[in-house]
Amino acid sequence: MSDTLKLSLVSDLHVHLRQGPMMKFVVPHIKEGGIGRVLVMPNTLPPITTVEQALEYHKQLSNVDPTTIYLMTLYLTKDMTADEIQKAANTKGIITGVKFYPKGMTTHSEFGISNLIQDIPKEIFQALSDCGIVLHLHGESLESCCGSHHPTSFQLDAERSFIPTLRSLSTSFPNLKIVMEHVTTKEAVECVMNCGNNVAATITPHHLALTVDDVFANPLHYCKPIIKFPSDRDALWNVVTSGHSRFFLGSDSAPHTVEKKLQVPAAAGIYSLPYLLPLLAHLFEQHDCLDRLNDFVCNFGPRFINLPNVNTREITLKKHSLSIPNVLTTNDIQVIPFYSGKTISWSLQ
Amino acid sequence: MSDTLKLSLVSDLHVHLRQGPMMKFVVPHIKEGGIGRVLVMPNTLPPITTVEQALEYHKQLSNVDPTTIYLMTLYLTKDMTADEIQKAANTKGIITGVKFYPKGMTTHSEFGISNLIQDIPKEIFQALSDCGIVLHLHGESLESCCGSHHPTSFQLDAERSFIPTLRSLSTSFPNLKIVMEHVTTKEAVECVMNCGNNVAATITPHHLALTVDDVFANPLHYCKPIIKFPSDRDALWNVVTSGHSRFFLGSDSAPHTVEKKLQVPAAAGIYSLPYLLPLLAHLFEQHDCLDRLNDFVCNFGPRFINLPNVNTREITLKKHSLSIPNVLTTNDIQVIPFYSGKTISWSLQ
Repeated sequence: MSDTLKLSLVSDLHVHLRQGPMMKFVVPHIKEGGIGRVLVMPNTLPPITTVEQALEYHKQLSNVDPTTIYLMTLYLTKDMTADEIQKAANTKGIITGVKFYPKGMTTHSEFGISNLIQDIPKEIFQALSDCGIVLHLHGESLESCCGSHHPTSFQLDAERSFIPTLRSLSTSFPNLKIVMEHVTTKEAVECVMNCGNNVAATITPHHLALTVDDVFANPLHYCKPIIKFPSDRDALWNVVTSGHSRFFLGSDSAPHTVEKKLQVPAAAGIYSLPYLLPLLAHLFEQHDCLDRLNDFVCNFGPRFINLPNVNTREITLKKHSLSIPNVLTTNDIQVIPFYSGKTISWSLQ
Repeated sequence: MSDTLKLSLVSDLHVHLRQGPMMKFVVPHIKEGGIGRVLVMPNTLPPITTVEQALEYHKQLSNVDPTTIYLMTLYLTKDMTADEIQKAANTKGIITGVKFYPKGMTTHSEFGISNLIQDIPKEIFQALSDCGIVLHLHGESLESCCGSHHPTSFQLDAERSFIPTLRSLSTSFPNLKIVMEHVTTKEAVECVMNCGNNVAATITPHHLALTVDDVFANPLHYCKPIIKFPSDRDALWNVVTSGHSRFFLGSDSAPHTVEKKLQVPAAAGIYSLPYLLPLLAHLFEQHDCLDRLNDFVCNFGPRFINLPNVNTREITLKKHSLSIPNVLTTNDIQVIPFYSGKTISWSLQ
């Protein structure tokens, strides 16, 4: 294996860029981290529910760094209309998706939806399908799974409980593109594999790196969905190393201040953005699949979403140790990055 | 149900009283909390491995509060001898037990033992059995369980993995009194029930009150063994409400400073001592078994260990709301108690 690794345009198809000072802090990390294109989550305060808000947010992000390509999403609420979806489709690729949050499950999900299939009319899914707007799912449910699964823990079982919803949507709307975000369980991986080509999944670096044992004493590792068991992590690696084209990078990089991560209860989210590519190279090398990295971070996601080819950018990773800082600081903001204080074996050239 | 509840001498058969300033801080909480007798864990620094050390520790504790009855234990190491066990038995009931810690599993377990059955000679177990010294087990193992159980998480499976060891010891030494401490899983409860009358278990208030979902975002709830699933908690309540005489109170009250609980990784342990009895009354009432409380906290444990009857003390609980403080403070020490900031429906008269 060579000591350098060339990647084409890297797309991280799940990031939280926040607002205000935090936004100004984290947006530059995208480019610094070698990432050219990001799919921006809409769970701001207030949430981004309209095309107008999304375009305004896009402008704010572009003001901080105009060189990054921001793909915008709308927060799915009961007020969503087919008209708004059509408007989104007319933004020339700026708005590419709609995001479903299950009410009460994660950061700013208070605006979300309790039951996706019951609460959202079929016309909305049909409009998404017709307009080529992708449905991104935070695929967790607090309801137990059709009586077939005995719930043991709400948090550990919430993704499994969502699987029937995913299956139902994917067959009811075979042309609707669906991304099961931050997939964490063996069962969800298998469900996505068994669904048609309209269903894909993103995978985060922390769900590849850790298991639930790493979460118990460490609120820095607290995120939604909760990081699962070794057998689940094995399933993620199996699908990544096999080069399955419907599984790709969505880091779910979610910055919180040190205070919010160390308060009780801790805020849910892990911030991996600035060292994402070196960390992924480190992990992929450990799993003997460095040759899969370029497809995972550059090709599979954009191909699924049908993004335009942008071949002008290229970045190079080199085999050179990198110490991840304990904390990232600017003015009044301190954020602890994922893998803080650890040394990894790859870095950006 | 009456609005008052009289209890005879309360025995908490699993407490950590620490050393130095922390010891002086927490020891008075025993009496203030209405508890008359405690079984003191030996995982100090250095650990209490000899009769001489245990008697010295007993003296220190008595100096802080001479009105509490302290039952002392020795930390089981490979250096333990049958002679030392005989000496312990000659302390007229001051030293009543020996405690096994699996190496590396919990606070100050670095002096512990990797494999209880392989590393400790049979003569030691026989001496304990002959002398009437109780073997207290931190019943967790990092080894997987005889191939029959597929390990999913070291921490969530560590108690189940220990069950074969418990079963083996209990049949090999049928007159050896064994207490499986802080039992947390359905499987361990069933194992203790199915063992002979030489095996009992303690139960903590936090394993009765919480499930693993309460641990993820909250390092204050981080303890060993990890708090388990709703079905496990149900098993604990079932055995408590049935009035099974081999299951009794051991709070595992384990004070750490605020700093140690909120550092990463967090220290393992929950401090429930000062409000233990009101909290238990609150929880027992919620589970419609207030009539089981007196046996659980006063009778079953002392009867199993064969402690002398001490009927001189009586305390009364009354149905009156109690707000548990956010933090307990003295000089430089701050400790966050279990249920901090919550209001419960019983208090001491």
